[in-house]
Amino acid sequence: MTWTRKDLLGLEDLSKEEIELILTTAESFKEVSTREIKKVPALRGKTVVNLFYEPSTRTRVSFEVAAKRLSADVINIAAETSSVRKGETLIDTGRNIEALKADIIVIRHNASGAAAMLARHVGISVVNAGDGWHEHPTQALLDIFTLKEKLGKIEGLNVAIVGDVAHSRVARSNIWGLTKLGAKVMVCAPAMLIPPGIEQMGARVTADIDDVLRDADAVNVLRMQFERDENSAFPDALEYLKKFGITQERLEKAKKDIIIMHPGPINRGIEMSSEVADCANSVILEQVTNGIAVRMAVLFLVAQGSDKKYETLD
Amino acid sequence: MTWTRKDLLGLEDLSKEEIELILTTAESFKEVSTREIKKVPALRGKTVVNLFYEPSTRTRVSFEVAAKRLSADVINIAAETSSVRKGETLIDTGRNIEALKADIIVIRHNASGAAAMLARHVGISVVNAGDGWHEHPTQALLDIFTLKEKLGKIEGLNVAIVGDVAHSRVARSNIWGLTKLGAKVMVCAPAMLIPPGIEQMGARVTADIDDVLRDADAVNVLRMQFERDENSAFPDALEYLKKFGITQERLEKAKKDIIIMHPGPINRGIEMSSEVADCANSVILEQVTNGIAVRMAVLFLVAQGSDKKYETLD
Amino acid sequence: MTWTRKDLLGLEDLSKEEIELILTTAESFKEVSTREIKKVPALRGKTVVNLFYEPSTRTRVSFEVAAKRLSADVINIAAETSSVRKGETLIDTGRNIEALKADIIVIRHNASGAAAMLARHVGISVVNAGDGWHEHPTQALLDIFTLKEKLGKIEGLNVAIVGDVAHSRVARSNIWGLTKLGAKVMVCAPAMLIPPGIEQMGARVTADIDDVLRDADAVNVLRMQFERDENSAFPDALEYLKKFGITQERLEKAKKDIIIMHPGPINRGIEMSSEVADCANSVILEQVTNGIAVRMAVLFLVAQGSDKKYETLD
Repeated sequence: MTWTRKDLLGLEDLSKEEIELILTTAESFKEVSTREIKKVPALRGKTVVNLFYEPSTRTRVSFEVAAKRLSADVINIAAETSSVRKGETLIDTGRNIEALKADIIVIRHNASGAAAMLARHVGISVVNAGDGWHEHPTQALLDIFTLKEKLGKIEGLNVAIVGDVAHSRVARSNIWGLTKLGAKVMVCAPAMLIPPGIEQMGARVTADIDDVLRDADAVNVLRMQFERDENSAFPDALEYLKKFGITQERLEKAKKDIIIMHPGPINRGIEMSSEVADCANSVILEQVTNGIAVRMAVLFLVAQGSDKKYETLD
Repeated sequence: MTWTRKDLLGLEDLSKEEIELILTTAESFKEVSTREIKKVPALRGKTVVNLFYEPSTRTRVSFEVAAKRLSADVINIAAETSSVRKGETLIDTGRNIEALKADIIVIRHNASGAAAMLARHVGISVVNAGDGWHEHPTQALLDIFTLKEKLGKIEGLNVAIVGDVAHSRVARSNIWGLTKLGAKVMVCAPAMLIPPGIEQMGARVTADIDDVLRDADAVNVLRMQFERDENSAFPDALEYLKKFGITQERLEKAKKDIIIMHPGPINRGIEMSSEVADCANSVILEQVTNGIAVRMAVLFLVAQGSDKKYETLD
Repeated sequence: MTWTRKDLLGLEDLSKEEIELILTTAESFKEVSTREIKKVPALRGKTVVNLFYEPSTRTRVSFEVAAKRLSADVINIAAETSSVRKGETLIDTGRNIEALKADIIVIRHNASGAAAMLARHVGISVVNAGDGWHEHPTQALLDIFTLKEKLGKIEGLNVAIVGDVAHSRVARSNIWGLTKLGAKVMVCAPAMLIPPGIEQMGARVTADIDDVLRDADAVNVLRMQFERDENSAFPDALEYLKKFGITQERLEKAKKDIIIMHPGPINRGIEMSSEVADCANSVILEQVTNGIAVRMAVLFLVAQGSDKKYETLD
């Protein structure tokens, strides 16, 4: 298998083999962060630009750490405070970054499709760090990496995604990735938070959380973004916990070894109880650790893909 | 020719030979950004502080990339959110940065003369990244570098500067630099945007854009900063495009190989049409690329100038 | 003497020997910032996260420079604009940073005890860069380092701390550190700015600035933080200068070699006159220089303390 793409825009585009190549590459990079000197020279002398149109400390920091462990130079642009305010178009901004002879743009944008549009207009690599409600591929890749590490495989797993699927690029990327790798995906949320088209993506939809937990090998609990929509039609946080929140009581009816995931940051006591977040089944912090390995792999692969073919080592 | 200055404050101060030394040094650094590993150890173990009192992502990022390609450590200070808010004077801030044993301060400030004042009060190097309406020397140097690269020389060229000259440090630095190198400079703008003293600087002033374009070997189109002055006496953006904007139609009456420059970010459809911005005569993105080389040269030279004499290699 | 702590939370906790070990280590690091290449590989491949819940350019920059001179990778998080806004707890934020396999968190927080709480919940090193009105240990260490460098010893010195002691973590850390090392500490401020418990910490309290200056070998002048408390009961800035400010006139009655210190940024003309700030007795900028050495020492020691014992070289 050879990586040939200059960009990583979403999991919808990728083949099963490409996803597996990223996961395998991430496995080999995971060890770097356990060394005394957590650094490899893979991207030395390369410039990675974090271009963030939405504030996101978690994702920006994860990409920044990943790039620095690969020895790249990292430039952070918080685009809210940049020349964007002066009316520059996204394409002009991208072409300017390309003209700096940067190698990779990691972009977070509030518009679905922004990363793909940017990628079409620059010759350098673009990595989608979340575009609107569309995709957040590296988050899904780290979720899948973590699942595979814990359960040994993805094929045949029952994976539940619970929460605000309508506004979740994490959910969409997970559905694409998991179904390509042969998992069965169940999506569970109040009806108003299920967008049209989810079943066509290959997921089963239900509003019964207890039904979902009975079968699930893993549950990926989405963040309720109460701060995003102040006029939310959904009643309130406590009501949500009661109907859809993952509590210890609910977990007792689930498989004993069920994996609990969350993309963070957690609203403790809303989408899951505090004891669930911290229980032995929770792999939430391992997801964060694996995010570094997955993002190192993605940066490494697109950097290869942008100029010459990359041959896997095995 | 030997570089002996600890600072770069403006082009008004520099001799023709000093400007040429910067351009020659930049030529040798331009190649670095085309390498597989875009890094040289010239400033390894040096600390460059970007001290920005005005938001400017473009210039900050360009200096940051330049410094990192020289292997310097870079510290960014967005002074709007710093101890400046606590009432510290610019001189105290500068002396504190010097006390950190930093080597170079790159300063952007809204007051004309701020960089020069800082330079008088610290022993380390100061690079002016734009001070009020006074000078923006590295922008003019990259403009001149680009012109010379494209047209082989500066002497004898007819260079037009079009737009809001009154509020443009870019225009002022270009006039100083170009005239010292023997170019003829024409300045074209509505009368209210021509400050007093421009002709004494050596430029010809006119309000007839078509007249200017007929003779020009290159035109440097300034950004109309509509966001700066909300009570601008100037009518409006469309009116500006009609009277002074560079359009395809206007270009047809210009020299076939006229060079189109712009310091960015472009207001497409205001100071120039979108098709002009992207046409074959436009070198706007090459200016961005050359900005890295020119800023590498400036950082390198002042770092030498601050402690010992620097002998040119040739 | 061996350093065994994973954290530096305050000087109250430290033994005299531990403080002396930090000072000795800082002495050896001070030389690094005088080299042509100001860098040692001590923390190469380590990740230092600056987690700042209060804006503080001075302290953040000092830690950033220190970490980079040790060759660490530095990640800055301005927590006002981070996922903290999304309601994540400090403990969750800390555990997420730990999960990135970072090595050291440098935390500035508005709540007293925040650094200690964080340190109890993560396995990696925590350095307190100021917590509420509680402690600011590296500031006190650099004050003490500077005093020792200037006067050859700490034991037996008379050190005055003048100003808003009530709201000063700098004062508290200085009192702990200085008394442990055998100095006598006098605290001088208007009664309303003296918090309860200062005498129990071992300091003598007085409101007579002239009395204090008569005996002092050194005076550490605190910043009046007028911007913090707009409804301050204290009359006004000029009144403060008159009653407690350090003026040339007052200094004439002090010991000839009295050392003048200030943690910065200075309010010139409020807590001290401009001529005092710049006089030969003032070591304010040397404090800034020594801050780098002290923070290099602290980062180096806690990095050792977090995994294996560190044996002093002598």
